Amino acid sequence: MNTEIPYKIYLSEEEMPKTWYNVRADMKNKPAPLLNPATRQPMTAAELAPVFCDELIQQELDDTTAYFEIPKEIRDFYKMYRPSPLVRAYCLEEKLKTPAKIYYKFEGNNTSGSHKLNSAIAQAYYAKKQGLKGVTTETGAGQWGTALSMACAYLGLDCKVYMVKCSYEQKPFRREVMRTYGANVTPSPSETTAVGRKILAEFPGTTGSLGCAISEAVEVATSSEGYRYVLGSVLNQVLLHQSVIGLEAKAALDKYGVKPDIIIGCAGGGSNLGGLISPFMGEKLRGEADYRFIAVEPASCPSFTRGKFAYDFCDTGMICPMSKMYTLGSGFIPAANHAGGLRYHGMSSTLSQLYHDGLMEATSVKQTEVFEAATEFARVEGILPAPESSHAIRVAIDEAIKCRETGEAKTILFGLTGTGYFDMKAYEQFNNGTMTDYIPTDEDLAKGFASIPQQ
Amino acid sequence: MNTEIPYKIYLSEEEMPKTWYNVRADMKNKPAPLLNPATRQPMTAAELAPVFCDELIQQELDDTTAYFEIPKEIRDFYKMYRPSPLVRAYCLEEKLKTPAKIYYKFEGNNTSGSHKLNSAIAQAYYAKKQGLKGVTTETGAGQWGTALSMACAYLGLDCKVYMVKCSYEQKPFRREVMRTYGANVTPSPSETTAVGRKILAEFPGTTGSLGCAISEAVEVATSSEGYRYVLGSVLNQVLLHQSVIGLEAKAALDKYGVKPDIIIGCAGGGSNLGGLISPFMGEKLRGEADYRFIAVEPASCPSFTRGKFAYDFCDTGMICPMSKMYTLGSGFIPAANHAGGLRYHGMSSTLSQLYHDGLMEATSVKQTEVFEAATEFARVEGILPAPESSHAIRVAIDEAIKCRETGEAKTILFGLTGTGYFDMKAYEQFNNGTMTDYIPTDEDLAKGFASIPQQ
Repeated sequence: MNTEIPYKIYLSEEEMPKTWYNVRADMKNKPAPLLNPATRQPMTAAELAPVFCDELIQQELDDTTAYFEIPKEIRDFYKMYRPSPLVRAYCLEEKLKTPAKIYYKFEGNNTSGSHKLNSAIAQAYYAKKQGLKGVTTETGAGQWGTALSMACAYLGLDCKVYMVKCSYEQKPFRREVMRTYGANVTPSPSETTAVGRKILAEFPGTTGSLGCAISEAVEVATSSEGYRYVLGSVLNQVLLHQSVIGLEAKAALDKYGVKPDIIIGCAGGGSNLGGLISPFMGEKLRGEADYRFIAVEPASCPSFTRGKFAYDFCDTGMICPMSKMYTLGSGFIPAANHAGGLRYHGMSSTLSQLYHDGLMEATSVKQTEVFEAATEFARVEGILPAPESSHAIRVAIDEAIKCRETGEAKTILFGLTGTGYFDMKAYEQFNNGTMTDYIPTDEDLAKGFASIPQQ
Repeated sequence: MNTEIPYKIYLSEEEMPKTWYNVRADMKNKPAPLLNPATRQPMTAAELAPVFCDELIQQELDDTTAYFEIPKEIRDFYKMYRPSPLVRAYCLEEKLKTPAKIYYKFEGNNTSGSHKLNSAIAQAYYAKKQGLKGVTTETGAGQWGTALSMACAYLGLDCKVYMVKCSYEQKPFRREVMRTYGANVTPSPSETTAVGRKILAEFPGTTGSLGCAISEAVEVATSSEGYRYVLGSVLNQVLLHQSVIGLEAKAALDKYGVKPDIIIGCAGGGSNLGGLISPFMGEKLRGEADYRFIAVEPASCPSFTRGKFAYDFCDTGMICPMSKMYTLGSGFIPAANHAGGLRYHGMSSTLSQLYHDGLMEATSVKQTEVFEAATEFARVEGILPAPESSHAIRVAIDEAIKCRETGEAKTILFGLTGTGYFDMKAYEQFNNGTMTDYIPTDEDLAKGFASIPQQ
């Protein structure tokens, strides 16, 4: 066992990033702008102002500034739960008998249970700075909602969360964590909004989707005085805030002179993957280094691997700005897959452009294979991973096994986005052997594609 | 805000303890020996051998060796989830407007959710070294059972867990975590043992107790080939292993020249409190420094503050060795208090002796006040604490408030033993305002005392 590199690398407070990195600044082909769904013209800051906080809009639209200073208040909050450890997976390597060197950046050591807190505190901070009363949002698995509740409790902001109904029912304790942090949580679709009522009338008994919960949260934000909507993924601003993951990971690796060959992350809307790869992708874009990037998505919701690259609605209600991205169509309702956070029909426009330009790869994996990897990982590395994170574990293990076969000692870095403590119903199904896989047929996909507007 | 001391102090791998500290070596009045319940004579190593692993028996009986080397295999496992951070509670201090300086040693950043893993890996290691097939144990809130399951999965040992029935029902997901780590989990009392059947016949509908679950686990261990019993608290060996908490905390404080005035820990069987205070108590016993130590127990199960200092049975079935300790009587069945891990009728004999000799204080707190403190803490420090840990938070906050009133800038250190992710039913009751307090009457206590054998 190579003990020169510690099991866990923690940066000191002085070594922690003081700026976020905006990967768009180094992209030759910029991600396409958001469009106004009514006019199909690029959204202006003024048009976005009723939905988003002003300073976040600036971050959203700025594709030339490479570095944004992290405000001191946010850096102080980061110190509460960051830096997150960069872990050398010595035990997993030994179990797999692989010559590969495996590292993971573990973002689960905070009560939200994931990396989501990195952007939640940033968005809540700018909302507070703007003098708002509160924010609204949607949440899938509940990690983003919990993160936002924590940030709002800390800053004294009101927080209204629309939680995808299937997660609300599968994870009742997530709701209680949010309530403990003072948030108001509603299962979506709900009767509290016009769009929710419309969807319930059209699809009674629906288990909901992120796209639908987004519509409800946006409706409440735009129709309530002193509220704005905040979003935990997909947006450029979120990737900007999440770059703290990649910046810390890179700083930790650089300290020990380690350069990864392959960087792997799970991809739902792209917040974790985008944050993790940003500074490495920057080097690749500037021609300073080369890396293989792999996005891992569930076979049940395969935006990258089976979706279309097109302008689409971000929400089911079609009230949000349109984004050019890999999409399954806003009308695609994924199966009640337990990896709730990866059930989004679309994808970050930045990551979509990078994928379209051949700068990163994507693959999809089946749920049961994901839980096999999760259990194997838990038993040797001690951490019980979230289903979402376990998508990345699956592919990291597969790549490490390839190294065993070829004898190559590649360095693999993956993002371990969070813990699975609130996903025990899914683990129970897996432990009982009753978990099933769902892969949409081409006909299922065609129904979703039909909802993508003509370009 | 004083930023000279970081929010979190992590030791490097080189700075992590290489030995455990045995506080008994420095005690003038040693804890009384374990007695054979049949003969009432001190238990010999040979008599203990059918119950416990050989090397652990040596640790249990040795009250003169101050330091035990931590085997390399255990230190490697510790590196997976340790060092745990020593956190400066800047945000809590600001919220309380106290001149006090508050630190906590946070043991919740691992999947067992608590400090229990520190002793679980040690006990599993010695069982493996002895060539055993597996181990049996009891668990209250489920943290110890989870910890032992993790350690056994890592080492490839079989693990049978008897879980106190009220916790088994309140925390079904704990069971799934243990199953994910390959453990066999049975609610206690059960029909699988003679002692379980006897208790069920006598008290149908009982919600169980740690004392009863211990009896079942011991019965199974002693009647199965290649099995031994392991225990997560109370025993001297457990305090020895848990001293890693105090040793790390002290090393972290020493790095910054900080000396605590008050050290606070929750107390069920004493594993966390004993581990946290050991090295500090050693200094006090050797006359090198002085500290105030406060044990915090639930008002519903007040072993220190309302119990008797006497030889008593450690388990309801009266098959374990007898221990001299503060006790409510093995016949005391505590109310279905949510702080499951603190529902034990007895207490570590080492801590009992220290308390008896006036070297530490004890206080009891009510459950609703504990959850008030837990919620306040969660909102400013980000961590959702376990109910057990929150007993210590309650008293730490109370002491910090006293400092605000007197103007004294005392330094307070407390043990934050774990997270409350599997305790959301209790938080839900608190959030809904339906949580109640239970304080046993003198008559309730008298019933328990009646089960203490004549001395």
